[in-house]
Amino acid sequence: MKTVYNFSAGPSILPKQATEEAKAAITDFAGTGIGILEMSHRTKPIEGMVAETESLLKELLSIPAGYEILFLGGGASLQFCMVPINLLGANSVADYTDTGLWASKALKEAKKFGKVNVVCSSKDSTYNHIPKTFEQTSGATYLHVTSNNTIYGTQWKEFPKANTYLVSDMSSDILSRPIDVSKFGLIYAGAQKNMGPAGVATIIVKSDILGKVERDIPTMLDYRTHIPEKSMFNTPPVFSIYVMNRVLHWLKNLGGVAAMEKLNAKKANLLYDVLDNSKLFKGTAAKEDRSTMNIPFVFKEEAVAADKKESLEKDFLKIAVEKGLEQLKGHRSVGGFRASIYNAMPIDGVEALVAFINEFEKKTLG
Amino acid sequence: MKTVYNFSAGPSILPKQATEEAKAAITDFAGTGIGILEMSHRTKPIEGMVAETESLLKELLSIPAGYEILFLGGGASLQFCMVPINLLGANSVADYTDTGLWASKALKEAKKFGKVNVVCSSKDSTYNHIPKTFEQTSGATYLHVTSNNTIYGTQWKEFPKANTYLVSDMSSDILSRPIDVSKFGLIYAGAQKNMGPAGVATIIVKSDILGKVERDIPTMLDYRTHIPEKSMFNTPPVFSIYVMNRVLHWLKNLGGVAAMEKLNAKKANLLYDVLDNSKLFKGTAAKEDRSTMNIPFVFKEEAVAADKKESLEKDFLKIAVEKGLEQLKGHRSVGGFRASIYNAMPIDGVEALVAFINEFEKKTLG
Repeated sequence: MKTVYNFSAGPSILPKQATEEAKAAITDFAGTGIGILEMSHRTKPIEGMVAETESLLKELLSIPAGYEILFLGGGASLQFCMVPINLLGANSVADYTDTGLWASKALKEAKKFGKVNVVCSSKDSTYNHIPKTFEQTSGATYLHVTSNNTIYGTQWKEFPKANTYLVSDMSSDILSRPIDVSKFGLIYAGAQKNMGPAGVATIIVKSDILGKVERDIPTMLDYRTHIPEKSMFNTPPVFSIYVMNRVLHWLKNLGGVAAMEKLNAKKANLLYDVLDNSKLFKGTAAKEDRSTMNIPFVFKEEAVAADKKESLEKDFLKIAVEKGLEQLKGHRSVGGFRASIYNAMPIDGVEALVAFINEFEKKTLG
Repeated sequence: MKTVYNFSAGPSILPKQATEEAKAAITDFAGTGIGILEMSHRTKPIEGMVAETESLLKELLSIPAGYEILFLGGGASLQFCMVPINLLGANSVADYTDTGLWASKALKEAKKFGKVNVVCSSKDSTYNHIPKTFEQTSGATYLHVTSNNTIYGTQWKEFPKANTYLVSDMSSDILSRPIDVSKFGLIYAGAQKNMGPAGVATIIVKSDILGKVERDIPTMLDYRTHIPEKSMFNTPPVFSIYVMNRVLHWLKNLGGVAAMEKLNAKKANLLYDVLDNSKLFKGTAAKEDRSTMNIPFVFKEEAVAADKKESLEKDFLKIAVEKGLEQLKGHRSVGGFRASIYNAMPIDGVEALVAFINEFEKKTLG
């Protein structure tokens, strides 16, 4: 059987061991004789599993005391409104950095609930870099950053120092490197890129920043509803949490986020080196801001005539699929190709892609 | 190996065939070589699967033209606020029927967004019946009913005729019987009782009732965000939808909701007959309102001395588990026992429970 490497930007590749364990639990969870999809969340095995998932995350990210962890439905997109609803007063200001599509969606939503100051934007250059010099609003409640931009392949290598606290959407690079959680008031992340399958978002929130806005918050959108209930106020997305649990175990066994950071750098460098030395391809992101997770690349304009580009792109993608290299099509706003090489992508997959890129270049340019 | 019957109120038993199919898809979805947890929702196989799930639901519930179907995260509890946010103007009135815990949660949440008139309540009798005579508010936007009360074991056998349109939480009995969808403006249901696993709520909404409130609705809470995107505005809970897809196929092959209604009546009658003829046990719900899905029962006061009750209950539950009859403990607000016999509970499971009830009664009363 052909080995398939899945370079999808999300939902995306998961560790094989984690999916095998999740698969087994569908017909028998933890020796109960009942499948995990069919077990009440009010049972000891499920409560224990959710609590363990929380502990694993605390350990892996060295989350300090004073922070709470929530697993909620609705994805990171629901957090775009939950964050300002819970944190931003109607007459207060939040600073937002505009570094990509998801960053712009987050700031657009925040405008419904308070004042938003867009402190920087790289929109005019198709979000190909992270603007690093900007002024924060005096008295701003928080500074929002999207840690990694899935579409444009840029990443905050060092987070800016917030006047108050940072809030970050880390959907596409959480657990890919160590972070200093103490600088953040709130971190949120949809699971379906680096942590698990679709259906659950993880929220890490410093509890003392809550309860400071005046508005009447809908019960389900209030973080304070879910904290005392340990994410069990209503039925949580149990299976998605369980897959995350298995992914966290896998990561811990590999040596945690510090070991993962080294592995991610090695994988990304393999690919960037080939692109930097290519006569046919080039990366699209500014070198100093390059993501270790998502690597968009295109044909060099000087190497491919404009009228040949589309058919050559189709060619590349078609042969890639034949070789088991799946989901390499770039996002429409950047074009070309994109390789998402999240934590779970084995180095073998990147090596196979690199070999194919070299082979395709040789075939095309001779 | 012992056969286990899972009488959990939710998450709860699923058809064996559906869980086996879902399990297989975890390592290879639809022959793609990629597991369903790892596939982008923007791929043809996933888009096709979600569209098929929608079609199956339309067919099974005979949903007329003019209605839209959505699959969203956050559970039915998020719908408690989404319904009034989308439908109820700040100065308008909605009528709510108070028939149980979930009904009372729904009406409490609606009060945050408009005026709520509680047109009837059975709270004073521990929600043991459905109040059927009440007056609706003239000009009320909608009448809200909870079709089945999981905790108290009551069910609207015939829905009241709304002055305008009905809105219903059908989480615990959707697909258990045919319904006339045209009487409803909106139906919502968490999947984890009769349709699938936790993590997805299904919404069936008549599109012409939307867009009539003045407020600025958060993007993710606005049904109109999700309708043109076919539930793909953001990453939907793909796997939960897929399990639902397999459950709907199973139901269709069994003959659909009309056939299921007959089977459910047969199962419920088996259990109610035993309780009605028992000297030790009795059902707690008013006969005419008895649910076919959730059957709470307790010891008769005259049969068990007050000081023996607790230990005899423990005894019953302990032996039940030994016999593979799981999750029969009643909800704390009713006490005693509860058998949830959703669509997926085979008649063999009910027969095994009935045999055990008879045996336990004989052993106890002689």
